[in-house]
Amino acid sequence: MRITPATELTDRFQRLQSLMLQESLDAVILAQNADLFYFSGATQQGLLYIPVDGEPLYLVRRDFGRARMESGLKHLVPLRSPRDLPGVLADFGYATPKRVGLELDVLPVAFFRRLEKVLTGCDFRDATPLIRGVRAVKSDYEISIMKDAALIADKIHQRAAEVIREGITDLELAAELEFHARKEGHQGYIRMRGFNSEIFFGHAFSGPDSAVPTGSDTPLGGMGLNPSFAQGASYKKIRPQEPVLVDFVSCFDGYMVDQTRLFCIGGLDPKLEKGFADMLQIQQLLMEQARPGVAWGAIYDTCLQAARQLGYGEHFMGAGNARVSFIGHGVGVELDEYPFIARGFNDQLLEEKMTFAFEPKVVFPGLGAVGIENTFWVSGDGLKSLTYSDQSLRIL
Amino acid sequence: MRITPATELTDRFQRLQSLMLQESLDAVILAQNADLFYFSGATQQGLLYIPVDGEPLYLVRRDFGRARMESGLKHLVPLRSPRDLPGVLADFGYATPKRVGLELDVLPVAFFRRLEKVLTGCDFRDATPLIRGVRAVKSDYEISIMKDAALIADKIHQRAAEVIREGITDLELAAELEFHARKEGHQGYIRMRGFNSEIFFGHAFSGPDSAVPTGSDTPLGGMGLNPSFAQGASYKKIRPQEPVLVDFVSCFDGYMVDQTRLFCIGGLDPKLEKGFADMLQIQQLLMEQARPGVAWGAIYDTCLQAARQLGYGEHFMGAGNARVSFIGHGVGVELDEYPFIARGFNDQLLEEKMTFAFEPKVVFPGLGAVGIENTFWVSGDGLKSLTYSDQSLRIL
Repeated sequence: MRITPATELTDRFQRLQSLMLQESLDAVILAQNADLFYFSGATQQGLLYIPVDGEPLYLVRRDFGRARMESGLKHLVPLRSPRDLPGVLADFGYATPKRVGLELDVLPVAFFRRLEKVLTGCDFRDATPLIRGVRAVKSDYEISIMKDAALIADKIHQRAAEVIREGITDLELAAELEFHARKEGHQGYIRMRGFNSEIFFGHAFSGPDSAVPTGSDTPLGGMGLNPSFAQGASYKKIRPQEPVLVDFVSCFDGYMVDQTRLFCIGGLDPKLEKGFADMLQIQQLLMEQARPGVAWGAIYDTCLQAARQLGYGEHFMGAGNARVSFIGHGVGVELDEYPFIARGFNDQLLEEKMTFAFEPKVVFPGLGAVGIENTFWVSGDGLKSLTYSDQSLRIL
Repeated sequence: MRITPATELTDRFQRLQSLMLQESLDAVILAQNADLFYFSGATQQGLLYIPVDGEPLYLVRRDFGRARMESGLKHLVPLRSPRDLPGVLADFGYATPKRVGLELDVLPVAFFRRLEKVLTGCDFRDATPLIRGVRAVKSDYEISIMKDAALIADKIHQRAAEVIREGITDLELAAELEFHARKEGHQGYIRMRGFNSEIFFGHAFSGPDSAVPTGSDTPLGGMGLNPSFAQGASYKKIRPQEPVLVDFVSCFDGYMVDQTRLFCIGGLDPKLEKGFADMLQIQQLLMEQARPGVAWGAIYDTCLQAARQLGYGEHFMGAGNARVSFIGHGVGVELDEYPFIARGFNDQLLEEKMTFAFEPKVVFPGLGAVGIENTFWVSGDGLKSLTYSDQSLRIL
């Protein structure tokens, strides 16, 4: 069982504290699982109180014994009810905070209102940008876990080449890949931060079904099995001469990488084959441009312009009205982290050791989708790829 | 692709409207996926506006074409931004609402604040109890889908008996069952309503690991693979003479059932074997007591008292401090629906066609957990079980 080292946790909360100081926050209180995991090393139910100065205090409702085992933080205390929060803080010698940062992007209103009643007179601010900012820049420790996740991603990729054959359904393909991933230690559950954002491993789909859009903010959607979970693999059978996309998230010890590869049986329509080659070219453009100090939005703008010049104005990152306004997304303990390689993020700059997935894709309704996706980390002299599976169109 | 019939949707929103009338709500606005699916038949991104009188209006941000295909509602309209909400409502001849119900238990604060700005001057109330109340009572259509889900649950059960053998890990068992379920059409993603509530298929674990508690509000936890997702199967190997619990959620076409069965290799410690028999007895007590008009909390109290008399005061529904204060939970499109067979729910009564899982379990730290779980619907003359796998301790 990999336990997050105490030195990691210290570096994380100290980086948050320096941002809190800039924003004049006396404290940040965290409750959401991904943030708890990142800042405490555990996901045991409770509240993590981080003062602007000094050690955090993990108030654990359940399970306390387990939190003590899994968290490298110095101070943990059982919490019977959020109502006890002020008393426990006083017992630990923490001054009553006046300005408190919360995860307002994910905390439900009812939860927030209970906290408001408990901490009367507090001025609550949104700490989301601070939290996301800290989490976006990874440590060597985190990058090493993401490399482990990339090993599983490659095993999924290799398995796909063995499994894809004429007549099996997209669901059968997905089920085989999920099974293979799980046996390799994929944790199964994948976290997304966005409200209503849901994912199950990712997507495996073929031909026209790969070009069907859905409600989620993703370039590809898929029919899914039903309108309740309207994404990913359907009961469609794989046929020769159509694109088969495997867009899977590998998640190991809490960290993930995202990878997409393209397969087909026999060969591919020249239009799609050219589309795929052009997406590789856009990835090349990213590689040439992305380094510390470059604006997230600038990368997006350059790559979108290139896609338009290549003739994909109506097909890049979705078709027609279903186009999304991003090409890449940060990954780490959630699938939708900073940085967003997206329209409008022109003031936010790439920093060393940020990690993100970049997924140029082109969608032809009725025919299918093609594209590539890799997960990168930003080094001082440019991007390094974490995912490493063979990138060529795999003809089976 | 199963599409929710328009008559179903009409019955659902009309039942909500009669509760809205009692609460003097002019409208309810829904945004969360499970509620969108229940009231519109689709999960395409947008807002579902339900006036206290008349037809609902599904304002779809994306994907509109797909929402038209999947939703049986009469009125759908594209929505570019929530900012356009007042204008679109006016275009459709809806009066500006004054008192509006929202899903305050799940809507993030930031999302809520954007809605507040759009609908200035509105008095926002929590519509959660109304929504949960409507959803708790199922139609024949819904129960028939849950019966389909129970077919998959039984296939998982049968597969477990084939797979469990000495030396395989809990993870290998879980992976095999997940694979089997997926090939049968399990949708994969399972929805829970509670903040931070996460689940991946359910749990398969053995011996001491089945008795390890975790942060979630569940009687059993499990080690899991890592502290990031600290529940369910671990790398522990299955040995003879220890309990192997398979507690899996089957989810098909949006609806789920929950089932737990007990296996072992060779035989079981007499203490655990007696514990299992006693849990069956508590299930029998439920069957005798539960019918329309009985309070949720009364069932809980009776069964808890019985468990205490049987000597499980410190072990029933968790051990020591890890005990939870419920024995059953409603299931349908989410795993944590009404009714709660739980402490304190003495004013809320069982109604005909409510559906819930009942899971008496007893936990012996260091040894393991044993218990049973079935999903029931409430008929006029008592409970009917949806899950039907053989209930006896399966000795392999």
